[in-house]
Amino acid sequence: MITGRAAKSQPTISEVALAAGVGRATAARTLGNYGSVSSDARAKVLAAAEALGYRTNALARSISTGVSKTVGVIVGDIGNPYFSGVLRGITDTIKARGYDSIILSTDENLHNEIDATSVLSDKQVDGVILASAAIGAADIRHIDSLIRRRTPVVLLDRVVPGLDVDSIVINNRAIAKKAVQNLLALGHRRIGYIWGPTRSPSDNSREGLDESIARTLWSDRERIKGYLEALDENGVGVDPLLISSTEKTETMAAHAFELLMALPEPPTAILAAESPAMIGVLHGIRRTGLTYPAGISLIGFDDTSWSEVLEPPLTMVRQPLLALGNTAAERLMLRIGGFDGPGQIHTLPAEIISRGSITHCPEATPTERSEVKPRFEQQSQ
Amino acid sequence: MITGRAAKSQPTISEVALAAGVGRATAARTLGNYGSVSSDARAKVLAAAEALGYRTNALARSISTGVSKTVGVIVGDIGNPYFSGVLRGITDTIKARGYDSIILSTDENLHNEIDATSVLSDKQVDGVILASAAIGAADIRHIDSLIRRRTPVVLLDRVVPGLDVDSIVINNRAIAKKAVQNLLALGHRRIGYIWGPTRSPSDNSREGLDESIARTLWSDRERIKGYLEALDENGVGVDPLLISSTEKTETMAAHAFELLMALPEPPTAILAAESPAMIGVLHGIRRTGLTYPAGISLIGFDDTSWSEVLEPPLTMVRQPLLALGNTAAERLMLRIGGFDGPGQIHTLPAEIISRGSITHCPEATPTERSEVKPRFEQQSQ
Repeated sequence: MITGRAAKSQPTISEVALAAGVGRATAARTLGNYGSVSSDARAKVLAAAEALGYRTNALARSISTGVSKTVGVIVGDIGNPYFSGVLRGITDTIKARGYDSIILSTDENLHNEIDATSVLSDKQVDGVILASAAIGAADIRHIDSLIRRRTPVVLLDRVVPGLDVDSIVINNRAIAKKAVQNLLALGHRRIGYIWGPTRSPSDNSREGLDESIARTLWSDRERIKGYLEALDENGVGVDPLLISSTEKTETMAAHAFELLMALPEPPTAILAAESPAMIGVLHGIRRTGLTYPAGISLIGFDDTSWSEVLEPPLTMVRQPLLALGNTAAERLMLRIGGFDGPGQIHTLPAEIISRGSITHCPEATPTERSEVKPRFEQQSQ
Repeated sequence: MITGRAAKSQPTISEVALAAGVGRATAARTLGNYGSVSSDARAKVLAAAEALGYRTNALARSISTGVSKTVGVIVGDIGNPYFSGVLRGITDTIKARGYDSIILSTDENLHNEIDATSVLSDKQVDGVILASAAIGAADIRHIDSLIRRRTPVVLLDRVVPGLDVDSIVINNRAIAKKAVQNLLALGHRRIGYIWGPTRSPSDNSREGLDESIARTLWSDRERIKGYLEALDENGVGVDPLLISSTEKTETMAAHAFELLMALPEPPTAILAAESPAMIGVLHGIRRTGLTYPAGISLIGFDDTSWSEVLEPPLTMVRQPLLALGNTAAERLMLRIGGFDGPGQIHTLPAEIISRGSITHCPEATPTERSEVKPRFEQQSQ
């Protein structure tokens, strides 16, 4: 029976030195593997270290060599299937190169992210893949600090201005625009957007909306811009009331959906900007007694395995999760290997998986329906 | 513009010493914060370290103090909602104590788990929460090694024999038994089990089944034992053909379901042992054109937010994910703080969330239905 009762902390170099009957500097030189130590003293130190359970200390070695063969991955939300899918792609690639990954989750909170970069710096990782909550140049000091310490950084899912790093993203704006174009082609004119940018509840002006978009995460910003572009280009007026502005939880998404449906002119279709937003919408649909697609058309980010087992199954934007993870990991390994080219934005194409959750707008006339052509087949960039 | 082109590795102590114009041992003493260094030399080393971007090295400090204020969490599968839920509970608790967590995922592979414990040991974490893939006493050397290095370990989701550690689990056997009792009470006698223990496809004896159960992960073992106990106690013969033995992926769960439905006497109800197994079953249902609960009753582990938005919503076993995470973290913090009591198994109760996916067996007579009483209201341990 092995005891798990770890009462004491890790033995210190001093304790090892004491047990070995040598000075602390000798123990430190032996365990840190530097400087000159007599073979007799070295043997005593190593025996004492073993007996006390002192870590043979790849850490101390990594201080000398600068290589720890670990990569840190900082994600926004470990519970979001987007991140678990991308993590698989990252892990597959770096495992094949003999690296391990350690993961930290920030809850999309910049404070937690700053903590996380500090932990990874302390843990001497060789590089960092980061889905940053930073929005503007004021938020990047912690990333800057990693880079100054010569730790390569690759950004995932988001582009952050002011950093000369690789960013691995999808074509958020183009694919959101295409989703809305598909709804327009089916005659929808009032299209709700769940998980729009946070803004003052009383401000429903287009100016207020545009200002709030500028304060939003890059990927969220691109998606709402795609929505707006599709409406603007097709001459459909933007109604900010149709763009939710709630806290980003499933519960609040359900609430936002119910508020939209209670409007004097409710939406006939919904674009959900993330999979938890879609789950919230589905809760709202159950509670309001609606059915889809007859009562309301639904399209959303991101495709998951449960989207396919709903009846009817959901039409969803599918991101190439494995490829995103592979690409992020490959770029990072290249940087760790010494590649010195300028940072690039790698945009991978997402696609719309057409299933059964969108249909013609019941109120639209045949003419309205044919004004905008469907664009399912066309992959815009 | 900050450059992210990290061509070189982290500067070494030798490079810092060179830049400072002092010996390597002096630089090491200064940066490691031990031994005696003149204030002049110290100032030179710190200036050189700053200029080169040498990490101020909380790591080196943690070697001296034995405290890194980080906890490692090793999970079986980052994509399983069980783990993301528990991770939230862990993070909430340890953040409140000023600790950070780093996460590693093993894909339920013992080799990856051994790697992960080695990484965490190198990274000097103060404690480890581990959902171990170890089954028997032969598999625990890496856990033993952590413990010998005085790193407290708390097991999550599983009990591993031969280790005197805290284990945080649910009442798997009792709750699986109750799920089956509910199906028996509704007249079901042929109850399929998706994700049973892996065994030879040709061996469908009870002995072969029992042997395979002994080679299975503790939580899986407890669930199948609960299933068998319910059948045995109610005099319902166990048919090993009804217990799937496939690889644990959604695709294989769908395949296993279709095989069960193709039997001469197919099941009238299914117990899915994990949420990805249930997704697989739902795929199988769509493909075979069945409907639930009329065509087949469904009950499974673990409740997720999508279980509730299906039509009809699923009757699922709900684990207290946050409480499991909180408890695991609290026990670990207690051990890190020096608590020295014997390891305990902490069993938290799961519950069955009764929705609309199970109903009476269409073939059962009213007498059969009343032979076994439903036990929804009773919380057995």
